[in-house]
Amino acid sequence: MTEPASIAVDWGTSSFRLWLVDRAGQVLAERRSDEGMLAAAKAGFAAVLQSHLAAVEAPDHLPVLICGMAGARTGWVEAGYVDTPAPLAAVLQQAARVPGEARDIRILPGIAQRDASAPDVMRGEETQLVGALGLEAPGEALVCMPGTHSKWVRVTDGTVERFSTFMTGELFSVVSRETILSLAVAGAGDAEDIASFKTAVKAAYEAPAFAANLLFGARSRQLLFGGTPAAARETLSGTLIGTELAAGLSGGMPKAGITLVASGRLAALYRQAFDALSVAVTPIDADEAVRRGLSMAAAAIWTR
Amino acid sequence: MTEPASIAVDWGTSSFRLWLVDRAGQVLAERRSDEGMLAAAKAGFAAVLQSHLAAVEAPDHLPVLICGMAGARTGWVEAGYVDTPAPLAAVLQQAARVPGEARDIRILPGIAQRDASAPDVMRGEETQLVGALGLEAPGEALVCMPGTHSKWVRVTDGTVERFSTFMTGELFSVVSRETILSLAVAGAGDAEDIASFKTAVKAAYEAPAFAANLLFGARSRQLLFGGTPAAARETLSGTLIGTELAAGLSGGMPKAGITLVASGRLAALYRQAFDALSVAVTPIDADEAVRRGLSMAAAAIWTR
Repeated sequence: MTEPASIAVDWGTSSFRLWLVDRAGQVLAERRSDEGMLAAAKAGFAAVLQSHLAAVEAPDHLPVLICGMAGARTGWVEAGYVDTPAPLAAVLQQAARVPGEARDIRILPGIAQRDASAPDVMRGEETQLVGALGLEAPGEALVCMPGTHSKWVRVTDGTVERFSTFMTGELFSVVSRETILSLAVAGAGDAEDIASFKTAVKAAYEAPAFAANLLFGARSRQLLFGGTPAAARETLSGTLIGTELAAGLSGGMPKAGITLVASGRLAALYRQAFDALSVAVTPIDADEAVRRGLSMAAAAIWTR
Repeated sequence: MTEPASIAVDWGTSSFRLWLVDRAGQVLAERRSDEGMLAAAKAGFAAVLQSHLAAVEAPDHLPVLICGMAGARTGWVEAGYVDTPAPLAAVLQQAARVPGEARDIRILPGIAQRDASAPDVMRGEETQLVGALGLEAPGEALVCMPGTHSKWVRVTDGTVERFSTFMTGELFSVVSRETILSLAVAGAGDAEDIASFKTAVKAAYEAPAFAANLLFGARSRQLLFGGTPAAARETLSGTLIGTELAAGLSGGMPKAGITLVASGRLAALYRQAFDALSVAVTPIDADEAVRRGLSMAAAAIWTR
């Protein structure tokens, strides 16, 4: 068995993931919990991290590299931002050291777009970008990173030029739970309805201004024509994702096409959405991307 | 003092309004309460109506005409729908009589658009349309009726041809209360920021696909540049309304221009939104429109 070389942590708003990795980035041990930033701010960041380090029996000398919301102002130690245009290599150079800890613990900064007409921030996705594209990928990439707050990122020769956040996932959550449409989707369970989803993606892509109308249509359709709760839920999902795609694809397609960085159900859903529009994508697993990004960053910081 | 001729009731999801009117439609007495459909379904529709009739000392022989959600499937008596293309005069002819009541009580139907690709329903707005436009207004009208569920309606020679519902008001409510953006608007109080509102209306009107990004920008802007909670709230409001206007105005403008049927703060807000786009509107008070519509309907039903 190879020697552990560093510890990688993806510390988001509501989730915590830790990997013990060797010099080649191979995973030797893994921990997952829901002790994200919100929970850790109460329990104490140091205590949460220590409990997971103990669980994987991490040697005392191993350094820890963290990305994500632990570096926010409301996190453990504020890790600041690298401003756009942001070379991904610069992100690695500006990791903030956590003070008062014997162990070398650093938190990677986010990226800020300080454009008054399109202000935006990311924290965590920059590390996924490193893992997905590498530090110096030549040419132009358009990267779609779905989630609670989806990011669409243009990267040229390893530099993040522009990006846009869409609160698609969070909108889906509140629209399906907290509005009159909750009546239409009640009882949908896990049933899928790919045809309804794709129809909604196309409709919203073609007329994104009508998104708030297409959402309401899920209920009107049930009232007038019947239809399952699953069809209604997929209509909501497809409408919101189709609208996001209309915006994300509006800036023109790079020659290299689109890289989709996502995992699990979200990856499958977005692949279907792109498929509905006959747009080809290169899928990359988001979990793997963040782990690889953290390993590459650790190697750059501690192996000199 | 003139004789009371009928009783007009606007019975919505969450509000109840009753007017005692004379033959000319003049208001002799008024009642307002929050005993809308949801509350009345528990307390009993007949009991709620009776308490208000007693309060205005309504003579036993006076008929009652009701519009709104009291005629929904989940209301008092289902009043059905007139299908598009729907002559407004047909709405008056299909009022449903409430059975088992000595008094003549009728509920006006809604309008349904049974188009599988754009299904839609209205209930209550048809009566506002009667009051705002009259039964046989010649020519084409485009009517914007803001609200929790805004309606945009095309009416030609007194017939409702097409309409679209946008859940703009409900989206504003859940987005500002239930998402991460609640942090950005916390403490906004009643402070206005018309400049932020108009800027957001224009931005969303020009790029409606970016609505979910422009919403998120309200928070990013605060993080990177500061800014007041009021500015953030007006950005959310302006983004959602600007997106609605992009859709509503996309079908082309009729010669007669746009009729805005709204009351109070919502009327002022939408006038500012149209003003930001340099689009002229003819404002009509929504409360007055529904009252006038009910009076006209009552005259048509009981004065022959």
